[in-house]
Amino acid sequence: MHFPASLWVPLAALTPLRRHLPPMCFPPSDLEISRAQTPKAVDVLAKEIGLLADEIEIYGKSKAKVRLSLLERLKDQADGKYVLVAGITPTPLGEGKSTVTVGLVQALTAHLNINSFACLRQPSQGPTFGVKGGAAGGGYAQVIPMEEFNLHLTGDIHAITAANNLLAAAIDTRILHENTQTDKALYNRLVPSVNGVREFSSIQLARLKKLGINKTDPSALTEEEVSKFARLNIDPSTITWQRVLDTNDRFLRKMTIGQAPTEKGYSRQAQFDIAVASEIMAVLALTDSLADMKERLGRMVVASDKDGQPVTAEDLGVTGALTVLMKDAIKPNLMQTLEGTPVFVHAGPFANIAHGNSSVLADKIALKLVGQEGFVVTEAGFGADIGMEKFFNIKCRASGLVPNAVVLVATVRALKMHGGGPSVTAGVPLKREYTEENIQLVADGCCNLQKQIQIAQLFGVPVIVALNVFKTDTRAEIDLVCELAKRAGAFDAVPCYHWSIGGKGTVELARAVREAASKGSRFRFLYDVQLPIVEKIRTIAQAVYGAKDIELSPEAQSKIDRYTQQGFGNLPICMAKTHLSLSHQPDKKGVPRDFILPISDVRASIGAGFIYPLVGTMSTMPGLPTRPCFYDIDLDTETEQVKGLF
Amino acid sequence: MHFPASLWVPLAALTPLRRHLPPMCFPPSDLEISRAQTPKAVDVLAKEIGLLADEIEIYGKSKAKVRLSLLERLKDQADGKYVLVAGITPTPLGEGKSTVTVGLVQALTAHLNINSFACLRQPSQGPTFGVKGGAAGGGYAQVIPMEEFNLHLTGDIHAITAANNLLAAAIDTRILHENTQTDKALYNRLVPSVNGVREFSSIQLARLKKLGINKTDPSALTEEEVSKFARLNIDPSTITWQRVLDTNDRFLRKMTIGQAPTEKGYSRQAQFDIAVASEIMAVLALTDSLADMKERLGRMVVASDKDGQPVTAEDLGVTGALTVLMKDAIKPNLMQTLEGTPVFVHAGPFANIAHGNSSVLADKIALKLVGQEGFVVTEAGFGADIGMEKFFNIKCRASGLVPNAVVLVATVRALKMHGGGPSVTAGVPLKREYTEENIQLVADGCCNLQKQIQIAQLFGVPVIVALNVFKTDTRAEIDLVCELAKRAGAFDAVPCYHWSIGGKGTVELARAVREAASKGSRFRFLYDVQLPIVEKIRTIAQAVYGAKDIELSPEAQSKIDRYTQQGFGNLPICMAKTHLSLSHQPDKKGVPRDFILPISDVRASIGAGFIYPLVGTMSTMPGLPTRPCFYDIDLDTETEQVKGLF
Repeated sequence: MHFPASLWVPLAALTPLRRHLPPMCFPPSDLEISRAQTPKAVDVLAKEIGLLADEIEIYGKSKAKVRLSLLERLKDQADGKYVLVAGITPTPLGEGKSTVTVGLVQALTAHLNINSFACLRQPSQGPTFGVKGGAAGGGYAQVIPMEEFNLHLTGDIHAITAANNLLAAAIDTRILHENTQTDKALYNRLVPSVNGVREFSSIQLARLKKLGINKTDPSALTEEEVSKFARLNIDPSTITWQRVLDTNDRFLRKMTIGQAPTEKGYSRQAQFDIAVASEIMAVLALTDSLADMKERLGRMVVASDKDGQPVTAEDLGVTGALTVLMKDAIKPNLMQTLEGTPVFVHAGPFANIAHGNSSVLADKIALKLVGQEGFVVTEAGFGADIGMEKFFNIKCRASGLVPNAVVLVATVRALKMHGGGPSVTAGVPLKREYTEENIQLVADGCCNLQKQIQIAQLFGVPVIVALNVFKTDTRAEIDLVCELAKRAGAFDAVPCYHWSIGGKGTVELARAVREAASKGSRFRFLYDVQLPIVEKIRTIAQAVYGAKDIELSPEAQSKIDRYTQQGFGNLPICMAKTHLSLSHQPDKKGVPRDFILPISDVRASIGAGFIYPLVGTMSTMPGLPTRPCFYDIDLDTETEQVKGLF
Repeated sequence: MHFPASLWVPLAALTPLRRHLPPMCFPPSDLEISRAQTPKAVDVLAKEIGLLADEIEIYGKSKAKVRLSLLERLKDQADGKYVLVAGITPTPLGEGKSTVTVGLVQALTAHLNINSFACLRQPSQGPTFGVKGGAAGGGYAQVIPMEEFNLHLTGDIHAITAANNLLAAAIDTRILHENTQTDKALYNRLVPSVNGVREFSSIQLARLKKLGINKTDPSALTEEEVSKFARLNIDPSTITWQRVLDTNDRFLRKMTIGQAPTEKGYSRQAQFDIAVASEIMAVLALTDSLADMKERLGRMVVASDKDGQPVTAEDLGVTGALTVLMKDAIKPNLMQTLEGTPVFVHAGPFANIAHGNSSVLADKIALKLVGQEGFVVTEAGFGADIGMEKFFNIKCRASGLVPNAVVLVATVRALKMHGGGPSVTAGVPLKREYTEENIQLVADGCCNLQKQIQIAQLFGVPVIVALNVFKTDTRAEIDLVCELAKRAGAFDAVPCYHWSIGGKGTVELARAVREAASKGSRFRFLYDVQLPIVEKIRTIAQAVYGAKDIELSPEAQSKIDRYTQQGFGNLPICMAKTHLSLSHQPDKKGVPRDFILPISDVRASIGAGFIYPLVGTMSTMPGLPTRPCFYDIDLDTETEQVKGLF
């Protein structure tokens, strides 16, 4: 049973935006290109792709939230094809996965008349004002309006910040109140008499049940039960829940809080992370319904108590409030590409301490909307060894969705680096090896591409290599990469020109993807989640990274023992490793061999549903450079146009 | 020249919402009342009040932002009548200014067929999950949907948080970079060579101009000029710019930041304030255009340099980025009352360290929309001695708008307290003096009401006393208050029943307001801004609070000297004083006499445009109680309805 493809309006009628943009100074900035195109009204777009009027909530002219009720209406509709865009081990300048994702859907829908949807991550606002600039794609393969994409969007990250920090405040305040009050005083405040009536709230009844106290009358508890109920006994040294801000604020990486006299000496060391590193962001990305999100939020472990037992958000009584704060954020955000095709922008979890993929819900809704013959193109962060591995083992496990193909993005620049070229650093002009033809460096560097192709093949999914062509790449270099990729087992390998000419430049890629996806998928997971944590880590290290073995620090071993004892041993693994090398050492390019992967610590995101081993230290709060991007950012107060956003 | 009243659709056609709500258990909660009413679609409301389709930006079904272009279109339209709702010195439970504001517009428009607009402040989300609950009004005089009003709204406070914290991060990072780099290295990073071209950004050219360096070629600066340009030389001990969060997080009241090794030992003591205490919130509330907001943001002083000169946001190069982050927040948010009449919700500055009034822009737009015969009812925080005084001396001075009447809200409960009744504390049941008739306490307490009436009269504006009636108030008590109020010079005094029956219960108030406003205004400011700072403070202390004199701490005196020397002496004064007494001592009720008002410190919000003397200590970060509101808050994941929000 499936809906006709005509769920969308006939595709010829999907309003094309102007294909020929007005001439502008070359090279135009991403913002100039974005501004030269007028997006169609988002309610028009929504209608074109088959959404009903009450299934969208419009935010301004060019963004809308899509209600989850859609999934119920379309539950009998067959899913479309599911395509992941991943990349080889990147240079610090990136390989262009977002532009390929956007270019590919522009080619599929605006040029080949095939229904398609791009599912992208929402960028953190912090780096937008720091080093990185925006993340809406680039050149003629962009999400527009790019400033709406990069700033606030519909407030999802702000909602995460609010929810995350409410929980953080609840933890410290609870410890203070427990430390400064008797059992009786605590209990009287927690279960007060209101107009002469004293009763437990439903969240408190749930806690009583968890504690095995089968009473509903507040006056019936014994002294011991009162104490058990009223005291969480959080061990402050075990708190893993951090505060977050969507700002690059390095001075908050480590601090001592609680130094005002009102906090009575209960100061402790703490830190702020960037908001997208919040576990709530990972929960948002992995949940598939409001009910599931609420359960996940309640399950989040924030610390251990003095008996070593996990303390959760539910124990703090804050599950409902967190869900209320996140009730709109759970709805995917609809925007459009430069060529008028639909895009979901939803969730953007960190790609190291979390899984770095856009949301399960956006993908699920998009797969229904495109129809059986349509395509959903979703993107994974970092190189394929990280983002793609987590896409398969974590995201697809959570969603139950089966991918049909992987697009592996490579650049000649990165391949030359892997072949032994000089180091590539953001902000420093490229060495001449990268701007002139150098066949040898390309040939030597293709080992990384071959390895990443093999990693994808471990999962039984066909790989199409998309070579993101720069104007300095030569014909011989391009041909060599495509030749070597195919020899390494890629289903196909095609040069892509979306940056300079939009979807027209990615039509060949779109054709290859369509053909690969038509073959049917033999997708499989890499490991069984029931394996011991150590075995799962070792499997990823050896099969994916090519490590000889792993080495656990005593800290890591004891954490693994604790999580296993607490019943969390059967969660998938989310490796927190550098993306700049297949190994743990960022300077080891190409395909490092014979290395032992050191696991320095192991942490857990129980609500999101994964264990994350740390391979070295991971910074979770970026800083601002000496000359931040904001020096160039301005608003023209006459035209209301943003200037200087890249 | 003025537009016809028919700018609005004929008022009979302003869709009334159901007047007779379905029966519910009594007393129904505010949320139950809110939910029992279905708001009209916000685009319907917008059309009814004369907005053009491209003048609104819809956010979901029941909220919209209104574009400032409207002010240009309606610039020749005469303003409506301008009414302020203030209150007597309140109990900690509040007097009901918001409900009176909403009840009054419901009466004016839904019952008397007069165009009217309520302009309310956006509540902070922190207290919503702490002690206070929501702030949408209450009973049958509410803004709906109340959960949309209380949660996120359209993200304005989130935008303020982002802007505020970007500036905070820029300050500390700049100090670190200046401390760890030579002049030359700093300069090379601030003015880098990009593709062989080296040039100043426009924000840097403005800085050169400020420094008196008339050069545009980066290579032409002398060593001394390079140093002057590259170093702000911020004195860390003078930083007044704090980070903010919209969360009640008491552990952030005082902390030490910069303790990670990456910050190289440059740690310092800092604090977080609640987001609504940010100067950017005060800027938002006082600005009248995008260009003006940008100038104010740039003028904000964050610290002094080592020579004692003010360092501004503009010096840090972040003005443009702050403006970009705030470009949507500047547009007022349109919502509706329970009876379908229009409301603007916009800005919500702290009422102590800032001026505690909703935005100038919302009032200005509303005054145009209601037309010459219509009414705009706006609300000031705290008692009239604070919120109303600041409304007149700060907000009206900034806007140039002339108020026509003041509604002074009182309750029998608060008057009894002022008459010597026992103390009133949130969360503690009321003593019997407050639930039984007690004419003597009421009579004695009316001194506070009389004094507040006299304060309003200092400004030449007629006062109507609105007695917010509770079900325990007796006829004799009500009559006595109205009688004494009129004797004290009130234009009128009327009991109000909006809480229990909506606009119908405030019709008498509406009639009195209409009559008072028809008399014409003899509005005057209390002081000339050109007076010395000390004289302005003394004038407020004596004429408004009834103090014998003021007493400045040495710290306060030296700050006054510094601000005067820096050229900020001619700004209006924003007193940071407790709202629980006319004096500085919260326990002194009624009309305290013979007190000397101590000024412990003086600070400045240069961008917002006022000097704020501290009368005692002001907490700028609330905490969570032992049993926060969130214990009762939940989301029904089936119906998507919020539960337990008050």
